Amino acid sequence: MAVHMVGLRGLMATRQYCNNINNIPRQVRRVVALLQDQPLHQTVTVKGWVKGMRRQKERTFLDIDDGSCYKKLQVVLNSDQRPATLGYHSAVSATGILQPSTHPSQEVELLAEEIEVVDVGMQGDYPFKARQTHPPDYTRRFPHLRPRTNSFASLLRVRSQMKAAIQHYFEREGFINVDTPILTTNDCEGGGEVFMVQHLMAEQQSKGSSEGKVQDSYFKQPAYLTVSGQLHLEAVANGLSKVYNFSPAFRSENSQTRRHLAEFWMVEAEEAFLVGREGMEALLGRLEGLVKEVMTEVLEVTSQDVQAHWQRNQGTEEAVRSALDKPFSRVSYAEALDILSGAPDLPPVSPGQDLAREHELYLTNTLGHTPVLLTDWPLTIKPFYMSACEDDSSLALAVDLLVPGVGEVAGGGLREHHLPTLQGRLPPPQHHHNNNSLQWYLDLRALGGGVPTGGFGIGVERLLQFLLGIHNIKDTLPFPRWAHHCPC
Amino acid sequence: MAVHMVGLRGLMATRQYCNNINNIPRQVRRVVALLQDQPLHQTVTVKGWVKGMRRQKERTFLDIDDGSCYKKLQVVLNSDQRPATLGYHSAVSATGILQPSTHPSQEVELLAEEIEVVDVGMQGDYPFKARQTHPPDYTRRFPHLRPRTNSFASLLRVRSQMKAAIQHYFEREGFINVDTPILTTNDCEGGGEVFMVQHLMAEQQSKGSSEGKVQDSYFKQPAYLTVSGQLHLEAVANGLSKVYNFSPAFRSENSQTRRHLAEFWMVEAEEAFLVGREGMEALLGRLEGLVKEVMTEVLEVTSQDVQAHWQRNQGTEEAVRSALDKPFSRVSYAEALDILSGAPDLPPVSPGQDLAREHELYLTNTLGHTPVLLTDWPLTIKPFYMSACEDDSSLALAVDLLVPGVGEVAGGGLREHHLPTLQGRLPPPQHHHNNNSLQWYLDLRALGGGVPTGGFGIGVERLLQFLLGIHNIKDTLPFPRWAHHCPC
Repeated sequence: MAVHMVGLRGLMATRQYCNNINNIPRQVRRVVALLQDQPLHQTVTVKGWVKGMRRQKERTFLDIDDGSCYKKLQVVLNSDQRPATLGYHSAVSATGILQPSTHPSQEVELLAEEIEVVDVGMQGDYPFKARQTHPPDYTRRFPHLRPRTNSFASLLRVRSQMKAAIQHYFEREGFINVDTPILTTNDCEGGGEVFMVQHLMAEQQSKGSSEGKVQDSYFKQPAYLTVSGQLHLEAVANGLSKVYNFSPAFRSENSQTRRHLAEFWMVEAEEAFLVGREGMEALLGRLEGLVKEVMTEVLEVTSQDVQAHWQRNQGTEEAVRSALDKPFSRVSYAEALDILSGAPDLPPVSPGQDLAREHELYLTNTLGHTPVLLTDWPLTIKPFYMSACEDDSSLALAVDLLVPGVGEVAGGGLREHHLPTLQGRLPPPQHHHNNNSLQWYLDLRALGGGVPTGGFGIGVERLLQFLLGIHNIKDTLPFPRWAHHCPC
Repeated sequence: MAVHMVGLRGLMATRQYCNNINNIPRQVRRVVALLQDQPLHQTVTVKGWVKGMRRQKERTFLDIDDGSCYKKLQVVLNSDQRPATLGYHSAVSATGILQPSTHPSQEVELLAEEIEVVDVGMQGDYPFKARQTHPPDYTRRFPHLRPRTNSFASLLRVRSQMKAAIQHYFEREGFINVDTPILTTNDCEGGGEVFMVQHLMAEQQSKGSSEGKVQDSYFKQPAYLTVSGQLHLEAVANGLSKVYNFSPAFRSENSQTRRHLAEFWMVEAEEAFLVGREGMEALLGRLEGLVKEVMTEVLEVTSQDVQAHWQRNQGTEEAVRSALDKPFSRVSYAEALDILSGAPDLPPVSPGQDLAREHELYLTNTLGHTPVLLTDWPLTIKPFYMSACEDDSSLALAVDLLVPGVGEVAGGGLREHHLPTLQGRLPPPQHHHNNNSLQWYLDLRALGGGVPTGGFGIGVERLLQFLLGIHNIKDTLPFPRWAHHCPC
């Protein structure tokens, strides 16, 4: 057995690594594949990082993590051939025979015949310690290194699978993926704080301008970062019937709470020919079905990563199981106000007023600890494009989906199709987007061929918070941005 | 047979539509499902738009399009029961029995028992005429209505399938989807024109500010819209090994050509443990494999939409078939200069100079009309993070993928892993992002545990241009943005 130490970092490591003379035929495999397929007695190579090391007199046991799954692969080598530089978070390439493990916690292990140290691991101010779990408030300070921790790597795998599951759902259901624009002259919600986008000229760049000496003639009108692609989706739904986007969205709220992000991901769906209460029923069924199917797929594919979060975050598993096993609760805004009037310690809600997060959480807790589809909202507190109920024109055919522990994760409804009604509800002209910029949206009704549509938007980060029990939304995506924080 | 006309537009239509008393049990099916599954003699409902109408004395034949596929469904109704308002681009709901068609161009047709007009169709300045194909330069003026045209609906279906196929590829290959940020304080390429992002305060919004009176203290440093997520992907690859993003990216080039967009979609992949020429070979194989697998899936799933484009765009099918059937050509920059020196009508390229698009197209044409993987670039014309070849430090382990008719669709390479070398190649400090903002990127090497990585980025719009033969890149996405154009 030849234990091969190719050492030290930087160019030297790279050069030696490249030139490594290697007589063993290599088949590089991922850890997840070795643990699943268990190709016993075959020679394989794994490449990853040392996440655990147990040195015994005769043998050394390494836990190798290549990011492909929650579990590590145990690699066994003769202790006298252990490279001196091997340590926590060393990057290694290990080649050997896969064999059954005698240890009860794993079925297979790799008996190393060759091990190369690609990088020695922790140097200088490396922020993470061996065999130590760091709190999220700490790891969040190192977004560029955080993916190396077990818990955040888990989060990233679950996030990836959740996005894939959402796409799989829409593919199964025949929805067409449509890229709504990030740069827009509209602000869909008509009230939020938005980011403005300006052209920076090359000559200004070279002066290192940071005082806003920018050129804003790139577009004819002021351009903003999108807060929602819904209006654009409506346009495309009048042609393709069933469409969705999956895209970043932006809010420039000057907030430092654990619930706010300046940049987040939303999936929005829009479907043509949804009308009245019957259309609303179809919409609610789709929203509930989507959330359940997506969570089910994520639990199946990345179960160990989800379980790891559930073990840390008490009560999350019960809440998710309840959401999957029971129908979502369905209540109207009026019924919700009745329920809230019996809440002892909550600020009262006047009819026509929006709910605060504490009200949302009280509702989900009171209504069987399940997600709640809250409908029949006062039209006055919903955006201008919402359709009124045909049986009560003061109510909107709108829904918020509330989940335990998080609050609102999705919102949607049917869109006002009647042109004069819509024109009467346009945002006031003193708003920063002048109403001319919405003429194209009115055209969808004015020029004919348009049909009633309905849809919803789901916040990916909030759904992840619910599934995994993540306290701070900043820990649901790799490079969170919020007020005063855009470090890289 | 009851032909039911529920008429006129707006609220009236909506109300009648909602209240429609309907004794026929409805099963709403998509056109694509009816044409594929052919549930003969069943009562079904389709909802879509009238794209063709042939009125005969006894019967009227409608072509109904619901956006689900290229083909329309023929609906047959008794002419005396044809709603008076029915016309081109009317939105209808048709219920009847699916039966075999006697017409040779379709296998099934719907014998209508009930038809509702949800919207009468073309009104006022409706820009598209019945039975007329409008040129792209014309339809592009109506981005909000363009999805209603047959050719652009086709484009959107193919685009959606191409994005899905790219995601399927990375799922099969075990890559984790990672959302790199849109808002960033870095400019990856270190030279492009970028958009600057500023916070618009609510009080400024209400004043209708459009003169750039904005607040730029939202982030501590000036923030820009990303031109590439590669540096961030490198960080995550040092933990998850195989990662990719799929995200909008931005260039504020002040260009009006048919090849430029201010906002476009890129997929970027990054893989750990890629080193030297062996790593480069793996990267080239992956890039070629990805492009071939993606195009193959798109051709299979949306073949009629692709064929429709190929019939219009001469030579495209041959170019795509050639790309799929033959290995991509592989040439070095030096070899490319040799080939170009024999080109009679092209401007000469001095060694160390970048190629223009005309050179790229000459190379693809000369080298068997196939895609070309162009490698071994002079290090000096590639970005600072590119790794040098170990056998010639003047050359970069970098690749451009060139395709016939379009030019560059992808670029990539291995990243410089040696810290002092990387530090020596950082962009000059007078550049608008000061070098401190890249300290996190240097940390990946400085703090240990980092490994050599490599990857590539593919422009989705350019790949679509190649697959479908689309002349103007603005016709590859639903809401294109370029200089002076952000109309909605």
